[in-house]
Amino acid sequence: MLACIPEEITKKAWRGFTGRKWQEDINVREFIQNNYTMYDGDESFLEGPTEATDKLWGRLQELQKEERAKGGVLECETEVVSSLTSYGPGYIDESLKDLEQIVGLQTDKPLKRAFMPYGGIKMAEQAAATYGYQVNPALIKVFNEYHKTHNQAVFDAYTPEMKRARHSHVITGLPDTYGRGRIVGDYRRVALYGLDYLIKMKKKDLFYCGGINMSEEHIRLREEIAEQIRALNGMKEMASIYGFDISEPAKNAKEAVQWLYFGYLAAIKTQNGAAMSVGRISTFLDIYIQRDLQEGTITEKEAQELIDHLVLKFRMVKFARIPSYNELFSGDPVWATLEMAGIGMDGRHMVTKNDFRFLHTLENMGPSPEPNLTVLYSHRLPEPFKRYAARISVNTSSIQYENDGVMRPVWGDDYSICCCVSATQTGKEIQFFGARANLAKCLIYALNGGVEVTTGEQVGPEIAPVTTEYLEYDEVMHKFNAMMSWLVELYVNTLNLIHYMHDKYYYESAEMALIDTYTRRTFATGIAGFSHVVDSLCAIKYAKVKPIRNDDGLIVDYEIEGDFPRYGNDDERADEIAIWLLKAFMKKVREHHTYRNSEPTTSILTITSNVVYGKATGATPDGRKSGAPFAPGANPAYGAEKNGLLASLNSVAKLPYEFALDGISNTQTISPDALGHTDEDRADNLWHILDGYFKKGAHHLNVNVFGVDKLKDCMEHPEKPEYANFTIRVSGYAVKFIDLTREQQLDVIARSEHRVL
Amino acid sequence: MLACIPEEITKKAWRGFTGRKWQEDINVREFIQNNYTMYDGDESFLEGPTEATDKLWGRLQELQKEERAKGGVLECETEVVSSLTSYGPGYIDESLKDLEQIVGLQTDKPLKRAFMPYGGIKMAEQAAATYGYQVNPALIKVFNEYHKTHNQAVFDAYTPEMKRARHSHVITGLPDTYGRGRIVGDYRRVALYGLDYLIKMKKKDLFYCGGINMSEEHIRLREEIAEQIRALNGMKEMASIYGFDISEPAKNAKEAVQWLYFGYLAAIKTQNGAAMSVGRISTFLDIYIQRDLQEGTITEKEAQELIDHLVLKFRMVKFARIPSYNELFSGDPVWATLEMAGIGMDGRHMVTKNDFRFLHTLENMGPSPEPNLTVLYSHRLPEPFKRYAARISVNTSSIQYENDGVMRPVWGDDYSICCCVSATQTGKEIQFFGARANLAKCLIYALNGGVEVTTGEQVGPEIAPVTTEYLEYDEVMHKFNAMMSWLVELYVNTLNLIHYMHDKYYYESAEMALIDTYTRRTFATGIAGFSHVVDSLCAIKYAKVKPIRNDDGLIVDYEIEGDFPRYGNDDERADEIAIWLLKAFMKKVREHHTYRNSEPTTSILTITSNVVYGKATGATPDGRKSGAPFAPGANPAYGAEKNGLLASLNSVAKLPYEFALDGISNTQTISPDALGHTDEDRADNLWHILDGYFKKGAHHLNVNVFGVDKLKDCMEHPEKPEYANFTIRVSGYAVKFIDLTREQQLDVIARSEHRVL
Repeated sequence: MLACIPEEITKKAWRGFTGRKWQEDINVREFIQNNYTMYDGDESFLEGPTEATDKLWGRLQELQKEERAKGGVLECETEVVSSLTSYGPGYIDESLKDLEQIVGLQTDKPLKRAFMPYGGIKMAEQAAATYGYQVNPALIKVFNEYHKTHNQAVFDAYTPEMKRARHSHVITGLPDTYGRGRIVGDYRRVALYGLDYLIKMKKKDLFYCGGINMSEEHIRLREEIAEQIRALNGMKEMASIYGFDISEPAKNAKEAVQWLYFGYLAAIKTQNGAAMSVGRISTFLDIYIQRDLQEGTITEKEAQELIDHLVLKFRMVKFARIPSYNELFSGDPVWATLEMAGIGMDGRHMVTKNDFRFLHTLENMGPSPEPNLTVLYSHRLPEPFKRYAARISVNTSSIQYENDGVMRPVWGDDYSICCCVSATQTGKEIQFFGARANLAKCLIYALNGGVEVTTGEQVGPEIAPVTTEYLEYDEVMHKFNAMMSWLVELYVNTLNLIHYMHDKYYYESAEMALIDTYTRRTFATGIAGFSHVVDSLCAIKYAKVKPIRNDDGLIVDYEIEGDFPRYGNDDERADEIAIWLLKAFMKKVREHHTYRNSEPTTSILTITSNVVYGKATGATPDGRKSGAPFAPGANPAYGAEKNGLLASLNSVAKLPYEFALDGISNTQTISPDALGHTDEDRADNLWHILDGYFKKGAHHLNVNVFGVDKLKDCMEHPEKPEYANFTIRVSGYAVKFIDLTREQQLDVIARSEHRVL
Repeated sequence: MLACIPEEITKKAWRGFTGRKWQEDINVREFIQNNYTMYDGDESFLEGPTEATDKLWGRLQELQKEERAKGGVLECETEVVSSLTSYGPGYIDESLKDLEQIVGLQTDKPLKRAFMPYGGIKMAEQAAATYGYQVNPALIKVFNEYHKTHNQAVFDAYTPEMKRARHSHVITGLPDTYGRGRIVGDYRRVALYGLDYLIKMKKKDLFYCGGINMSEEHIRLREEIAEQIRALNGMKEMASIYGFDISEPAKNAKEAVQWLYFGYLAAIKTQNGAAMSVGRISTFLDIYIQRDLQEGTITEKEAQELIDHLVLKFRMVKFARIPSYNELFSGDPVWATLEMAGIGMDGRHMVTKNDFRFLHTLENMGPSPEPNLTVLYSHRLPEPFKRYAARISVNTSSIQYENDGVMRPVWGDDYSICCCVSATQTGKEIQFFGARANLAKCLIYALNGGVEVTTGEQVGPEIAPVTTEYLEYDEVMHKFNAMMSWLVELYVNTLNLIHYMHDKYYYESAEMALIDTYTRRTFATGIAGFSHVVDSLCAIKYAKVKPIRNDDGLIVDYEIEGDFPRYGNDDERADEIAIWLLKAFMKKVREHHTYRNSEPTTSILTITSNVVYGKATGATPDGRKSGAPFAPGANPAYGAEKNGLLASLNSVAKLPYEFALDGISNTQTISPDALGHTDEDRADNLWHILDGYFKKGAHHLNVNVFGVDKLKDCMEHPEKPEYANFTIRVSGYAVKFIDLTREQQLDVIARSEHRVL
């Protein structure tokens, strides 16, 4: 066998592992498929927290309390530019450091936020200033005068039209003031192969890259590979600061967890992307734990402790953010998304004991928004696991479910969720994150000839406005189509520009070092205001909509005469417009060249930004008032769902995933009583609902199980100890309810709580 | 008229100027053609130096003496990163500052070398260290850790093959450790239009750029335009530091000279390119002086003083260089190349009084290597000017001549020489500088199967080596062709990579701000070892060449039996091989894609690097010994010229300029006695020689008029006062003989001194 690492190393590190191809080349998937142990049992094997876990989690909770008391940020760095090696070792608590099974902090202190200027020096400065910290002026000078940052470069190149579209929020949430994120390094490679081999392979890639044709693409790639090699060497040095040598593969479970975490730590020390996913690590790590268990070198208690401590670290990831960012993505999320379960390409389910262990962290240490635990769901998962996951959902509302059945045909069986819901092949693919186009606003532009009603400014093209007394469906559709074509072109151009600059000024060398050199790239666009456009078109088609014009002749509101079907009721009339809208948008996106020959995709996904987007958008013909929040993601509009949870789920399930490969996010809150009278009943009912929903081809579901009363009580009495970790699922992530703004809390409360299935 | 600047401004600044198009858009050429005053007279109108000039030049000479005493560098900056505005005002001598008609220094002190790290922090550090200066470690950290520099980026991306080729000197002098230079801002625009209008026009370009198709090329260009606008604003601020407001056009000659110089000063404060040409400014400035003379607001004495003081500034331009750079380009040249004369497209000659004034600076202040004074020659120039220029040549050996007759059809009548001899359309074109390929070494590789004889390393492709007892012409040509194809591909790829990185890390925003946004770009390659390859092929074809092999079977020397024709004797047999060689090389270059769709060109031009290149190259079949210097540029090999100067010139004149648009450099030293017995005779003979040479279609001639004895005496007695400013022309520039290394002095002495015409 052409083993890629000397035998004297692998005979220790890889003892007992089987399979050939992953030993001859980097191929973590092949390793997993050859070595994982399916687990069909229930949760009875699980162990509670160790004393060390209790102490460390206790200390971290104290720190989190302090952090909240200080307005959300415990401390900001002002003197050190974050890099792989800019800090000495850091621990949760110096006096408890021997208890930490897994070590490594972003800075020298827990929850202290690093100074990360490369995305934008103004933002880094502002983020610190927001919490009363003043960055050293010498550093600010460096990043203003000597080194340009991503944000400055993007604004240098923006066209006036792009700035107008951004300012008017018809294109929103663009990654031009922070890291784009959504790139998941294959952190497992660090554990399986060790750094020396990874460096060797990257050097080989560098050797061959562009030899024949030194095109600009190859020149850029060569420099990127060189930066990746630099980052890999930096990771080794970073690990050595903590006393570890990660040159060689991990030899046991503890090392595997630690090595993998160092890979992830490298990412979060060098990038402040909106989403910094961990990836699909559960099954992988189970292989190491399983071997140690069989060899008798670890107990289940110790295994759980490793996972608990790793999760502790994921609960601590923090970035310094500016207020406008926090408005969009409320509650300080980092999307340390982590997957479990799924079905292999060979038909075997991939549930391992480790999947139970990760879910169990929500019991051992209570609910938490991070890591963003994601079950890759299939009705073919073993029942005990489905039941256990459902029970954890019922008790903690901290899990999301994604349909492995629709994702596997596209991404295989080793994809990771790179943000909220978007899949990418682990180690083989990255995504260019693209935020979203506000289609509700686009519809209003279509009616008003491209003029922004809130300001009177001409933002879109000057097509003739609608002048009829009642809105006519065919005319509106015609104009909306034209306006959407304009918007999509501008949107794609804007994203092309942003990603060009991000590669130039804020390249993710540490993450890309753990991804194949010739990576696949998707180009993610997104849709906001989805259900409002669908319902508006329904209103125009099936009822009579009389526009109300202001003194300038701009349509600012509507009188609706008669009833009309709405998306979210399993009503074909509405749902077919929803399908049309998605397809029409995606087809327009595909018409354009996207940066670095990436593959365009789209999502229906808004995170918590549905509130901000709605606030900036005038009234829509579905009856939504000016400034009212949008429904999040692909959710039906507030109050639209009249036929219960299942009918609502059926509507969403009709949207073709093939046209929204970046994800279709759906968030539902179910009253515990609607699910059953005992936790057992509720869990069983929940997984049956999931089975049915996903069998229909739906993509995603955020499950919350609680009543509105609890939310209201928590909003009024956030100081109650039981609410300290009260976590809910919002569009795309989980969040502590008390960390939301009041406006967002009210929005969550206003959403449909399904009391009937 | 759609005047581009408000009339209240132009009626002052542009009073008396005629023409329309240049007033409606940026068009300096049009302004010149409409307003310049031909001068057919002789030099009798010229004035000697003013007292101020004498004092300032005296002070500068003292400083230059100090500089030489300190080993070549007076002082290095260690604390300030050079930028447009990083220094307060600086003067030649604080106590004489009121005497300076034209102000502005690169740093705060005369001859102090700025810290310019963007081309390469290692070089900037090393350059200072060479002269005993230690750059502030905090700055070194910034450019190592936070901001990557051009040099680092290039070496990140180089392939091993590129590094080998660079190391073995088969590709040489690449701009990977310093600024590429050779970009001539149209500094005249600052005077004619003022900064506000230039900014307005760039903003307009930015507005329209890439609106429809936001390709990577447009994204890059948009960012570049934004940087240009930033630089223009910086120039305004820089001028204000000296108490000038350059927002509006210059209103008189003094302002015109000062405004123009500020434009150039911006370039040399921000870039340390090998060549930092001033451009074609003489005729332009004459228009302003002529107007002031006519208005009676200036005397000829004052006019000459303005030009003398401007030239003083050009004599002071300095950069901190590393030893390996100084080896290549000896004597601290900066190529502040400045043109005069030429013929307009309408047939009028463009000689003005100012052309006399610039030449006259060599009398008023004695000879000097900088600015690199270049006469755009035509036999149709007025005789008094030709005679005066020739006389200055005879007396100072400080001028070069280039054939306007071959350049004008290609570049029009407003081109500037961007380095030694290479033309670019002023303000409309830039050149990507490409150093040179060593074709003599390439020929040896062809004989030895790509193996480098000096090291035994495989550098070129492993084609079968020559194994015959005698070299056979057809076989050698076949292998040489194949080896040249390999070399050209590698060379173009290497340059593509360098220029990509230069644009990325060391973009010339101040120079590009004074050039049209949609600029033409040439991609300059170059040939070294030209005459040795030609003579070697002649030897193989017309004599018998027996290779001598070392123990490894590598050909290291040759026995030549019989006589053979040599390039440089007007012998058709040799000269047709010379023409073939140039065409074959250029055709191969044209086969490749060149960066940013630039137009490939080539040169036969080696500067002083012929010594270093030869040193690194084994013996050639023409009888040149291993390590012996090459002939410079397109010069015939040492000792090859047997038929006198005119035969030599005839050979060089046969090379088709169309295939070497980057220039064909020829340097000749003529014994004064060969030219005549009086200065008058010598001048007359010289311009007759130039007439004849250039009528044959030759491109360039460096003219030295002195005997070898003077050189030998100067080498042995550099301390003699008469040698302090003794200037000679070497390949591509002028240099003080005492500033050359002994090795290079010996090389100059060894070259043919023509004692017969």
